[in-house]
Amino acid sequence: MDTRRPIQQRSEETRARIMSAAGDLFARYGYDATGVAEICTVAAVSKGAFYHHFPSKQALFLALLEEWLSDVEVNLEIARSGAKDVPSALLKMAGRTGHVFQAADGRLSFFFEFWTQASRQPAVWQATIAPYRKYEKMIAEMIEDGIREGSLLPATDPQAAAKVIVGFAMGLLLQALFDPAGANWNEVMQRGILMLLEGMKRR
Amino acid sequence: MDTRRPIQQRSEETRARIMSAAGDLFARYGYDATGVAEICTVAAVSKGAFYHHFPSKQALFLALLEEWLSDVEVNLEIARSGAKDVPSALLKMAGRTGHVFQAADGRLSFFFEFWTQASRQPAVWQATIAPYRKYEKMIAEMIEDGIREGSLLPATDPQAAAKVIVGFAMGLLLQALFDPAGANWNEVMQRGILMLLEGMKRR
Repeated sequence: MDTRRPIQQRSEETRARIMSAAGDLFARYGYDATGVAEICTVAAVSKGAFYHHFPSKQALFLALLEEWLSDVEVNLEIARSGAKDVPSALLKMAGRTGHVFQAADGRLSFFFEFWTQASRQPAVWQATIAPYRKYEKMIAEMIEDGIREGSLLPATDPQAAAKVIVGFAMGLLLQALFDPAGANWNEVMQRGILMLLEGMKRR
Repeated sequence: MDTRRPIQQRSEETRARIMSAAGDLFARYGYDATGVAEICTVAAVSKGAFYHHFPSKQALFLALLEEWLSDVEVNLEIARSGAKDVPSALLKMAGRTGHVFQAADGRLSFFFEFWTQASRQPAVWQATIAPYRKYEKMIAEMIEDGIREGSLLPATDPQAAAKVIVGFAMGLLLQALFDPAGANWNEVMQRGILMLLEGMKRR
């Protein structure tokens, strides 16, 4: 280990190495079959270092989920900034979901496995559904902006439309995980958002 | 056992009793934790009778899934028959999805658990995704009918629109499983289908 680097930086590198090792091992062998010991071996860290960063394997999984979902958010923010109006922003966001599908690829069994456990533990469950509610809020706010700027019809119900859009996006993600070769999912996403916008757009 | 009934009828009753017991046990204790022995005890059948009907626990699960999905199909057929045109039929179908949400309720962990296993076994996986492809085909055919009858725009791409609609329906089902109290999902389904139809309808 390069001891010349500041402690703060080394600690962050250790954390990142643990997360990267865990992501690989979970995807390859499953969540249940991967122990903290194996993660430490692959990441080349001590158990002490592991528990310094994560109180449990579950906490580590939630950190991975959070990292993955913050990627989603960054991609959405990039798509939103610079778009001339809300409908264009929504379409640009849809066009960037290829990244999300890519990030999720190969992680199907691992998600199902974690969800199986989470669905039996209310606290983990809350942490797991929180992001979807957050996305819904984000989209509802965008729709409100669209009504204000005049690109979307005032009759649009922002909350309801956001539920429809998030539901649609989750369904495509699930189908893309299930059946990656079944369609060009990024294209289906864009087409769906276009269809959904038809009913909301001022012409 | 009432020996006056014909053998055929008794055999069907035994099969139904096994499936009902398995459905309850899987939902309550999970797929892994439920053994064939427990299913036989609750259903009050011998192991011989069990294996006469199902070669394995997995085959039993697939039969349960098929039963559940054929309910979906019957509900869709009922909604479709009698509607004056394809857009009305799609809206009526959306209005009947409450049954589907109800049937799925409480089975979340059990689905995730099975999917975890299925995602690691290609043959089971094919059996699991087949229904979604079938629904997609059903909806695509309906859209073709709608174009022929003149209620939908000829510019609509039936295959693509069907992918969007099935993706949306699956997403809502997943969200309803995740977060049953998060919305009136039946209403969100109808609203979404209405929004999707806006772009396809001839005015």
